[in-house]
Amino acid sequence: MHSRRVGTTKLVAPDIGFLPCQMVQGFKHFHLIAEPVQQTLTNGVTINAWGYNGSTPGPVMVVSQGDRIQVAFTNRLPEETSIHWHGLIVPNTVDGVPGIEAGPVVKPGETYVYDFVIRQAGTFMYHAHTMDAQQEMMGLAGMIVSLPERQMVNREYIILLQEWAVKTGADMGMSGMGMGKTSMTTKSDMQSTMEKATEQLPSGKALDIDPMSMDYNYFTMNGKSFPDTTPLRVRYGEKVRIRLGNLSMDSHPMHLHGHEFQVIAGDGSTLPIPWFKNTINVAPGETWDIEFQANNPGIWAFHCHKPHHTTNDHKTDVGGMFTTLNYSRRSTL
Amino acid sequence: MHSRRVGTTKLVAPDIGFLPCQMVQGFKHFHLIAEPVQQTLTNGVTINAWGYNGSTPGPVMVVSQGDRIQVAFTNRLPEETSIHWHGLIVPNTVDGVPGIEAGPVVKPGETYVYDFVIRQAGTFMYHAHTMDAQQEMMGLAGMIVSLPERQMVNREYIILLQEWAVKTGADMGMSGMGMGKTSMTTKSDMQSTMEKATEQLPSGKALDIDPMSMDYNYFTMNGKSFPDTTPLRVRYGEKVRIRLGNLSMDSHPMHLHGHEFQVIAGDGSTLPIPWFKNTINVAPGETWDIEFQANNPGIWAFHCHKPHHTTNDHKTDVGGMFTTLNYSRRSTL
Amino acid sequence: MHSRRVGTTKLVAPDIGFLPCQMVQGFKHFHLIAEPVQQTLTNGVTINAWGYNGSTPGPVMVVSQGDRIQVAFTNRLPEETSIHWHGLIVPNTVDGVPGIEAGPVVKPGETYVYDFVIRQAGTFMYHAHTMDAQQEMMGLAGMIVSLPERQMVNREYIILLQEWAVKTGADMGMSGMGMGKTSMTTKSDMQSTMEKATEQLPSGKALDIDPMSMDYNYFTMNGKSFPDTTPLRVRYGEKVRIRLGNLSMDSHPMHLHGHEFQVIAGDGSTLPIPWFKNTINVAPGETWDIEFQANNPGIWAFHCHKPHHTTNDHKTDVGGMFTTLNYSRRSTL
Repeated sequence: MHSRRVGTTKLVAPDIGFLPCQMVQGFKHFHLIAEPVQQTLTNGVTINAWGYNGSTPGPVMVVSQGDRIQVAFTNRLPEETSIHWHGLIVPNTVDGVPGIEAGPVVKPGETYVYDFVIRQAGTFMYHAHTMDAQQEMMGLAGMIVSLPERQMVNREYIILLQEWAVKTGADMGMSGMGMGKTSMTTKSDMQSTMEKATEQLPSGKALDIDPMSMDYNYFTMNGKSFPDTTPLRVRYGEKVRIRLGNLSMDSHPMHLHGHEFQVIAGDGSTLPIPWFKNTINVAPGETWDIEFQANNPGIWAFHCHKPHHTTNDHKTDVGGMFTTLNYSRRSTL
Repeated sequence: MHSRRVGTTKLVAPDIGFLPCQMVQGFKHFHLIAEPVQQTLTNGVTINAWGYNGSTPGPVMVVSQGDRIQVAFTNRLPEETSIHWHGLIVPNTVDGVPGIEAGPVVKPGETYVYDFVIRQAGTFMYHAHTMDAQQEMMGLAGMIVSLPERQMVNREYIILLQEWAVKTGADMGMSGMGMGKTSMTTKSDMQSTMEKATEQLPSGKALDIDPMSMDYNYFTMNGKSFPDTTPLRVRYGEKVRIRLGNLSMDSHPMHLHGHEFQVIAGDGSTLPIPWFKNTINVAPGETWDIEFQANNPGIWAFHCHKPHHTTNDHKTDVGGMFTTLNYSRRSTL
Repeated sequence: MHSRRVGTTKLVAPDIGFLPCQMVQGFKHFHLIAEPVQQTLTNGVTINAWGYNGSTPGPVMVVSQGDRIQVAFTNRLPEETSIHWHGLIVPNTVDGVPGIEAGPVVKPGETYVYDFVIRQAGTFMYHAHTMDAQQEMMGLAGMIVSLPERQMVNREYIILLQEWAVKTGADMGMSGMGMGKTSMTTKSDMQSTMEKATEQLPSGKALDIDPMSMDYNYFTMNGKSFPDTTPLRVRYGEKVRIRLGNLSMDSHPMHLHGHEFQVIAGDGSTLPIPWFKNTINVAPGETWDIEFQANNPGIWAFHCHKPHHTTNDHKTDVGGMFTTLNYSRRSTL
C-alpha cells in the first residue's frame, strides 16, 4: 500500500510503499534488505539498479519520536554495504560509515541489526555509506518519517528525488559523441561487480546505469519519471504537507504552481519563523517540509525548475522530475 | 525606455524595457508577442533566439496588487506555446501548462487572452511552459513586478539571469573535442523547427543556440554579457532594491562588492526577519529581492560567483554575468 | 602552526596555517605573497597551482573588528593580479578589481600595500579578482576571520572548499574519451603562462591543472582530499564552531553526522533566529558559520553530500571533500 492513516492524517508515498513494522518486546522491528532491483522509471525504461526490499528508493520507514527501533538489515548485494541514518542523531556505532567511523560493515549474505532510539521528529533519509558515490547513485536510498506527538495536517506526501545515468540505446550509439555518453573507466572493479549483480535477475530489456557518470538522463520522484509519476491527489480545503528529500548529485529547485507554500522544516528541524516560497531549492543531503492549503482547485504542475530535469533521455517532451497536484472543488478521491 | 517613475521610486530594467500597458474598461491591458528574435549578447555575438516583443528576456511587466489584467498573447513562433505566470496565484485555466493542466495551448499565428486578478505584490516571472526545457532555454522568459501599495525605496533594478549554449565558430571547430561542444541529437524535430524559425529573419552573422545542450558558454543579465551589461547607476544616499530572477539550468550566487545587502523577499514573499548577506544564491525558478543603502561610493562589481559564469565563450577575460554598481559622493545621473 | 589561542577559544585551520601579523605604529601589518606553489592534495597527487605564502588556500588572516590593517601584497606570479577582500566593506580603491573598479593592478614583481579598517566581525575570504575565472581556479584563495569582541565558543575550525581539474595520467590516456578529459583550448595565452610559472619550480612528479576546465576530479578542504584531510579534533562537552567558505564552481552541501548544528551566520552576518540543520549548502562566494555541542562522542563523517565530490579522480573509494570529527568521552588531544 502506498498510503497509511495516522490519527487524522493520511500519509502517502506515491509509487513506493511503507516498510512493514512489528512490535517485538517493546521494539519497533523492521527488516530492510539491500538487493539488486529492476525499477521501471517510465514506460519502456526499466533499469538494473540497487535498492531496498524490491524498489529504489526503498520503502518509507515511519517511526515516532521516542521509539526504540531495531532494523534487521540483510545484504543481498554482491559487495559490502551499510546503512547511514541520515539526519538522525544516533550512537557512533550504528551510524553506518564502516572503515571510517566505529560501526561494522555488512558483508554479502550477512544480516546486521541496527538498534537505536528515535530522538527527533521530522523528515530524514537512509542510504548506503560504503563506497557512497557508487552505491548511492546505484539507488541505495530511502526516506524516514518520524512523526511528532500531534499531527497538524490532513495529508502528507513523501517524495525522494534521484537522478540516473541510464545507458540507453541512443546513448550507446552516440558513445563518445555527445552529452549522453557514459564514462569508459577501468579504474575500479565496478563494472564486473555490476555484471555479477545483474546476472541474478532476468535481464529482459532492463538497461544498465553508470553510477560514476554525471551525464544524467533520467530524473525521478520516488523512482518514477513523468508521465509515469503518480499525481498528488488531495481534497479541497485540506492542509497538505510535502516531505522532500534529495539523494543525487544536483540541487533540485522544486516549483509548485498555483499556491504559495510555507517552508515548515529543513533537515527535520522546524523553522522558527513563517517563510513562504513557490520554489524550494533542495540540495543533495537536504530534506525540506513544505505545507499549503488546498484552496485553488485544478491540476497543478509540481516540478524541478532546472529545464533539463523535466525531460527524459535529453528529448524535448515533458518528462523527468515532474508531477501534478490534483483536486477539484468537490474532490472525491 | 528602460526606466519608469512610480511615485518617488525609479524602476529600471537595464538593457530591456517595460511592456506597454493601457487601461481598457477597468482592465490593465497588455499585448505580449512570442517571436524569433536576434539578441546581441556582447560585441560581435548576436544569437538567433526566441523572445517576447523583440528581445530576450522579454520586456518587464509592471502591475499592482489588486489589478485586473488582460494579456493578449500572440504566438509568432513556428510551434505551439503558452505562458506560465511563475509565482502568481491564478486560476488553473490560465496557468499556462497545456496538455497537463486545464489551460489552452496557443498555436502558431493565434492570439489568446489571459485574464486574471493580481493577488500578490512582489517579484515574479513569466515564461513558456510547453516543451519547457527547449522553449525556456531558447529565451522565452521575462520578469513581472507587482508593486505594493507603498513603495519603500528610491530606486529598483530588475534583472533576469539566463545562460546560453551558443554555437560559436570556436566550438564548431572543436566539435566533439572539448567542453564547448554541442549535442548532436536527432531525437526531436527541434533542429528543423529552429531552421524554419530563423529563416524568417535576416541571418547575417547571427549564431544559432542549442537549447538542449548544457555546455553553456554565455551568461547574461537581461540578455547582455559583460562588458556589454549596462552599469547600475544610483545616487549617493539612496535606498536601492535589486529584483533578481533566474530562468536557467544553474544556480547563480550573485555577489555584491562594497555593501552588505538585506534579503527582503524570496519568490515574491517578504521575509519576516532582517537577513544580511553579500552573496545571494538564486536557484532556477527563484526570485530574490535585495536592498542596500548607497553609502560607500565607487564603481563596484556585482556578479555571479561561479568563476566560469564571469567569462565569455570559455575565454579568460572577464565577461558573462557581471555588471557594476556606480555612484560617486556627488552623483549626477 | 595550524592552531592559535584567542582568549579561551582555540582557532584551528587544519592543514594550512595563519598569516603572521605584527603591530607597526598602530596598524596590524601582514605580508601576503602570491606565487606558484606545489600543493599535495593527497598521497601521490601534487599539483602545480597558484597560492599565497606557499600554499593553496593561503594562510588564514585573523583580524578583529575595529583593526586598522595594512597588507603588503607581493606578486611573484608571471602575470598581473590583485586581492579582493570578499565580504569586507572597504573603500572602492582597495577592493581589488583593477580595470573595472578604481583600485590598482599589481604587476609581476611589484608590492602594493592595501590599507583599510576592519568594520565587521565574521567569516570572510580573500582571492584574486584579475582574470578571476582562471586565477581563482588556479588556487588564489584564502579565508579571513574577523573576531568579535567576545568569543562565545571553545573551539573554531576554519575550512575553505575548493575543486580542481587535475591532469592525471589516467585522464591524459583517456583524452577525449571520458568525463576526465581536459579542455584543449588555444583561446588564451594561459597555457604558455602556466608553463612559464611552473618552470620556476622543480617539477618532479607535480601535475598540472586546467583552471578553465569544469571536469573536476579533486575536491579539497583546506587544500587536502580524504584520506589526507586532518580530522577535526575536539573535546567532549565543548561548543564548536566551523567557519566554511567556498571558492569553487559548485555548491557544496556539507553534511555533519551525529549532530544537529545551529546555523549561526552567513557571509559574516549573524542570523537573527535559531536555525538548525544537518546539511548546509555552501554556494560559491558564500561563507557559513555553524555551531554544535560536542555531546555525542565518536568518529563522525563531515563531508560534501554530492556523491562525486567524495571521490578522488573518479574512483569509487571514499576521497575528496570528506573529513571526520573526532572525540571520545574522555578526550585527550
